[in-house]
Amino acid sequence: MALKIGFIGMGIMGRPMARNLLRSGHQVTIYNRTRSRTSELVSEGAKVASTPRECAQGNPVVITMVTDSSDVEAVVLGKEGAAEGLPEAGVIIDMSTISPEVTRKIHARLKEKGIGFLDAPVSGGDIGAQKGTLTIMVGGDPEVFERVKLVFEPMGKRITLMGPPGSGQATKACNQILCALNMLGVCEALALAERSGLNLEQMHQVVTGGAANSWALENLGKRIIQGDFGPGFMVKLIQKDLGIVLDAAKSLKLPLSGTSLCQQYFRANEAHDEGDLGTQAMYKVLQRLGHFCRETE
Amino acid sequence: MALKIGFIGMGIMGRPMARNLLRSGHQVTIYNRTRSRTSELVSEGAKVASTPRECAQGNPVVITMVTDSSDVEAVVLGKEGAAEGLPEAGVIIDMSTISPEVTRKIHARLKEKGIGFLDAPVSGGDIGAQKGTLTIMVGGDPEVFERVKLVFEPMGKRITLMGPPGSGQATKACNQILCALNMLGVCEALALAERSGLNLEQMHQVVTGGAANSWALENLGKRIIQGDFGPGFMVKLIQKDLGIVLDAAKSLKLPLSGTSLCQQYFRANEAHDEGDLGTQAMYKVLQRLGHFCRETE
Repeated sequence: MALKIGFIGMGIMGRPMARNLLRSGHQVTIYNRTRSRTSELVSEGAKVASTPRECAQGNPVVITMVTDSSDVEAVVLGKEGAAEGLPEAGVIIDMSTISPEVTRKIHARLKEKGIGFLDAPVSGGDIGAQKGTLTIMVGGDPEVFERVKLVFEPMGKRITLMGPPGSGQATKACNQILCALNMLGVCEALALAERSGLNLEQMHQVVTGGAANSWALENLGKRIIQGDFGPGFMVKLIQKDLGIVLDAAKSLKLPLSGTSLCQQYFRANEAHDEGDLGTQAMYKVLQRLGHFCRETE
Repeated sequence: MALKIGFIGMGIMGRPMARNLLRSGHQVTIYNRTRSRTSELVSEGAKVASTPRECAQGNPVVITMVTDSSDVEAVVLGKEGAAEGLPEAGVIIDMSTISPEVTRKIHARLKEKGIGFLDAPVSGGDIGAQKGTLTIMVGGDPEVFERVKLVFEPMGKRITLMGPPGSGQATKACNQILCALNMLGVCEALALAERSGLNLEQMHQVVTGGAANSWALENLGKRIIQGDFGPGFMVKLIQKDLGIVLDAAKSLKLPLSGTSLCQQYFRANEAHDEGDLGTQAMYKVLQRLGHFCRETE
């Protein structure tokens, strides 16, 4: 069933996601603050809007894929926001990674206006966005989810309603805690290996075989050993996410010392202008802390 | 080729390892401080010795599988130690998890006496010991390794010479860093999930699918959700190992803040008499810190 969909945010994630909606036959109207970023999809058949409000006009489903909590608030609830243009019984789906608390506030505000709202952050990165294989973690009212579920299908593979508003963001927050601490484990293990004079490739091969293994070890551990610190997932982006995690934990009065330590280590990356490197650049922090450095071959 | 092997230490690991040597046709003489623990294998064909020295007499290969660095020093280098009884050109293989530094000292002392020494700690737990599927990480001289390599085969599946003396222990130390920090990630993620009111089973299912996954999440995360805190690998044993890790790191002047945090959390388990629980009991520490507790169904 072809739907009319508004899509706000043409970043590294939003553009391929909107493209997959277009390709699956939906009519897509796109909006981006920097208009030049819309031209590619326009040439592939998307309409372009000048404001979020215009992007919502005549489109019963509007998706937002932007950076921060404040960006979502602005494009959804702002003066020229999507909520102003949305037709009756419309639904807004925020696929950005933002605060669960702000998410619940937006949900409540939109509910007053009779607008359905889902939080639906994703994991799987730009590759997953391109391939349409994202994991999509949804929070919101079950009837709203059922009504728009098919919109997710061209974008994702594993689409799960996690619970009430904010539950999608809470799940994403848990996911990011794991990514950060698994990374710390990889970095400390490799640091000890390197300082102990082990052959890192051999060590990696041995420890991936058992109870020490993780996706981070297999994939990012390997890249550290190869001296490859490119993204992947950028330090500055996981920092944004860990900020969300620790804000949520603060509201819940939940001490998360490990996650907090990871945040401080990534901050040390930022101090060295390494925010655009991949998260595995945390290893560089340990190298500087421990005053050791791999010889390059 | 059937060999005459001495085996010191009939604990939860040593006994099944020695049994696998027996079953593969080797002649095995066993020693244990508490003699009653030797009766089972004696009934299966092992000889029993009254001292480590006697355990080594006439046996060109002696394996030690005991608890601490000091235990290894005692049974190998002590007055009635294995080194005193070992025939000419004999080899001692320590399969305990102990300090890489003490390992190098023992190696040097034995070298003076013309005795070969390998450190060969294992991962895979009691199940791996029973099945003969341990991962064996070996440090020592390559010619000694080649000479006795076949001794490892009934006990392990992945047998790797990692480098010079101490390299096996260093590899095991890296392995334990990963286990500890992956566990911390699992606990902090589940804590946020629980405090956020997520369905934990569902959250677990979603995040295991991607970049957040680890062996610890799949296996021990599941047990936390089921309220199962039994061992598995006991808190008191990982604490012993993290002590070794942090001693090694101290010698190398390597700061390992994450591993250190894990050690402190496991210490909080010990404060609550939870040393005999599995490492996933770290979750109980977070529950107490954050003052939340799962409702039991």
